[in-house]
Amino acid sequence: QDLAVTAAKNAKVLLDNDKVRVIELQMAPGGKTGMHSHGDHVVYFVTGGEATQNNADGTSTKRQPKPGEVMWSGPVTHDTHNTGKAMVKAVIVELKAPASPP
Amino acid sequence: QDLAVTAAKNAKVLLDNDKVRVIELQMAPGGKTGMHSHGDHVVYFVTGGEATQNNADGTSTKRQPKPGEVMWSGPVTHDTHNTGKAMVKAVIVELKAPASPP
Repeated sequence: QDLAVTAAKNAKVLLDNDKVRVIELQMAPGGKTGMHSHGDHVVYFVTGGEATQNNADGTSTKRQPKPGEVMWSGPVTHDTHNTGKAMVKAVIVELKAPASPP
Repeated sequence: QDLAVTAAKNAKVLLDNDKVRVIELQMAPGGKTGMHSHGDHVVYFVTGGEATQNNADGTSTKRQPKPGEVMWSGPVTHDTHNTGKAMVKAVIVELKAPASPP
């Protein structure tokens, strides 16, 4: 599932080319992205806050990023909830696999 | 030349792995990065502002990004000056060429 689809109005695709896709995610407290998948990606937290990610394998991960923090992740499937008291704003840079040579 | 070296105290490497390097650049008005090169990279402008880039080929490019704007660029060599009146803060995600197969 694609974050830009599952998170609908909370996600805005800022840039999409053959090498990267950049999504701005903004979620009010209580907001949920819906279960979605990423390949390799970088997350830059514009705001701090608290988010709980329910992973596809049933585990969950609580994050309390500070503003300006950066996170790397390999491929993952999760549903991200804003379990904090403030709007969370993050920018996700998804790397696209290099096109296989012809 | 490496931005993290030429821009010294104005540039902070936030993350560096085999696939990406993330640099936070903060420059006061009048600040300069020094001539440096990037490969493929994404720029996320945390603040808006005005910057003039003197390119290696002698041309120069004036940019007036808005906060939250994203820009893609292929390989480039330039010297970026903050020619505006406010601090400019940007996050640069540099893509590393995939390791050639053994």
